Amino acid sequence: MQHSIVSIFNLEHALAEAGLDAAALNPGPTLTYLSGLHFHLMERPVVLLVDRTHDPVIVLPELEIPKVDLFPYKVNAFVYGEDPSTWEAVFRKAIQSLALDGKKIGVDPRQMRLLEFRQVHAGAPEADFPDAAEALASLRLRKDPTEVAAMRRAVRIAEDALEATLPQVKFGSTEREIASELMIQMLQRGSDAELPFPPIVSSGPNSANPHASPSDRRIQEGDLLVVDWGAVSAEFKKVAEVVHSANEAGRAAGRPGVPCANVDIAARNLIAAAGYGTYFTHRTGHGIGMEGHEEPYMRGDNMQMLVSGMAYTVEPGIYLPGRGGARIEDNVVVTEDGVEVLSDMPRELRVVG
Amino acid sequence: MQHSIVSIFNLEHALAEAGLDAAALNPGPTLTYLSGLHFHLMERPVVLLVDRTHDPVIVLPELEIPKVDLFPYKVNAFVYGEDPSTWEAVFRKAIQSLALDGKKIGVDPRQMRLLEFRQVHAGAPEADFPDAAEALASLRLRKDPTEVAAMRRAVRIAEDALEATLPQVKFGSTEREIASELMIQMLQRGSDAELPFPPIVSSGPNSANPHASPSDRRIQEGDLLVVDWGAVSAEFKKVAEVVHSANEAGRAAGRPGVPCANVDIAARNLIAAAGYGTYFTHRTGHGIGMEGHEEPYMRGDNMQMLVSGMAYTVEPGIYLPGRGGARIEDNVVVTEDGVEVLSDMPRELRVVG
Repeated sequence: MQHSIVSIFNLEHALAEAGLDAAALNPGPTLTYLSGLHFHLMERPVVLLVDRTHDPVIVLPELEIPKVDLFPYKVNAFVYGEDPSTWEAVFRKAIQSLALDGKKIGVDPRQMRLLEFRQVHAGAPEADFPDAAEALASLRLRKDPTEVAAMRRAVRIAEDALEATLPQVKFGSTEREIASELMIQMLQRGSDAELPFPPIVSSGPNSANPHASPSDRRIQEGDLLVVDWGAVSAEFKKVAEVVHSANEAGRAAGRPGVPCANVDIAARNLIAAAGYGTYFTHRTGHGIGMEGHEEPYMRGDNMQMLVSGMAYTVEPGIYLPGRGGARIEDNVVVTEDGVEVLSDMPRELRVVG
Repeated sequence: MQHSIVSIFNLEHALAEAGLDAAALNPGPTLTYLSGLHFHLMERPVVLLVDRTHDPVIVLPELEIPKVDLFPYKVNAFVYGEDPSTWEAVFRKAIQSLALDGKKIGVDPRQMRLLEFRQVHAGAPEADFPDAAEALASLRLRKDPTEVAAMRRAVRIAEDALEATLPQVKFGSTEREIASELMIQMLQRGSDAELPFPPIVSSGPNSANPHASPSDRRIQEGDLLVVDWGAVSAEFKKVAEVVHSANEAGRAAGRPGVPCANVDIAARNLIAAAGYGTYFTHRTGHGIGMEGHEEPYMRGDNMQMLVSGMAYTVEPGIYLPGRGGARIEDNVVVTEDGVEVLSDMPRELRVVG
């Protein structure tokens, strides 16, 4: 939030670097980063237009007017009422005020919906809309000390909440009950009500699905329990140990001047050597910050260099279809000569219930 | 969830009615409704393609494969790995398997992002992509008894949670603390961890912002407190009474065969007559179901007819800039001869702290 004034200038600079005349942003983490404000992603389109020469312009519904005065810099607001047939004219006026038609207007395809895009396009039919995801991501790639401090607080809350939840897990508890208890524990420790993603709690065969939603399945003796992050037969023990080593190798591989690929390769080699390579079905990690998933991505073919201030996850996993899976996740920030590991829970397999 | 088998046939029928050959759906409430499954809306594109003659096709990343077997009907999966440069070829193959190029492929602009759209478009460069929002919304417009029962349960959880939270509100409590306590109370009563939207708790001048996020502002004596739903000077009392009457009139106006407009007009006329018309800056309500906001919309110019099974909010409000606001919200379901009001908390202004 405190970054919004600096970052709007950084954005103008990033646009110039990328050869873009402007950017069009709809509600999402980048808009929040640039404004310090939360806008709902809803059935009414909201778009912030930033170019390199004028004050930014925002198009928004009448009921959101109170937020315009909360911007940390001057923005010109173009407002519409509750009738969608009025949107197009208001968007056209906003775009004309910046003379954007025929220009290069960058968009983030991961965030921009057709709802907003078609309005902007109708107002600037001769414009180009190149992918500006990278230019926008560059603004948020290196975390400043305030952001790292906030991430440390978040990790502390999350770890303490899991420590308080585990003793309450019994055979017969459902995945959903454990997820609820975990959220209650996080809220009681000061977590924001809006989480980056709902907790993943998966048990037994469900734990072989990396993105499972908590179900009404009851925990049974011998189940592997994945809490996105992490929490038994002989092979399950071995799987957990291999994932543990891979996590350790992934953490150790990060430092400034090393490509993201190295983090992935370090973790993946260990899992492959143990014979589980085909069961590690995703990259080793992803950036974290304003979003739960953002740049940089720890992928074997990503030659982007790590620099200090980048923050990312190290979360190798092994998923045996129909049987179970394990994943151990840490959050790290790149320092001047290595990485600071924000998370420090025991990473060993724990027996609960 | 239980509707997914029926609804995939309904979708094929709705496509025919709307003159569409197919629909392309990315993760969101309609995809969940049609599959019973949750897919993350993330940096990896996921698209379900449904036409009128073949089995549905899904394009998804390798790590989501475990979900393919969970579909309640046969789908053909086209899978890509972690390298984004492979997406386009996989999407092209998927689209070719349904021979969709040159066809009319409906999309929901409120949900479809450029991330997915550009992949589909590249695979079907000669196709048209008309707005299918209405055809898709028609699938979910009338709630069946199971859905209404689920909504009754949700309202009961939400109301009981607010009743348990209010006695804990003290002068000096922050908006954020109250929002957290409310969420804890909901989770303890069995709410899913993923809420339709984070609670809005706004006090004093913040309550004049209809979509405020909970802040660290402490509650003071004399503040109006809005809990999206609702919670004192003489004028504030009057404002609360006017909103109360408008809410009552809005609830009374709904029944089968009456246009949505009537609900809005009934509520708005009362507020206008009291002299606060310009401070009621939004429509009176919106549909609810799989989404917190969906069709039908209670807007003065919406001549769509109410039919039994539709569910919507009645939530008139008055917002005095810089001073405070009040909103009273109810959830209703259209019955054979009127509406069933799901919510039954006292709607009068309550003094807390």
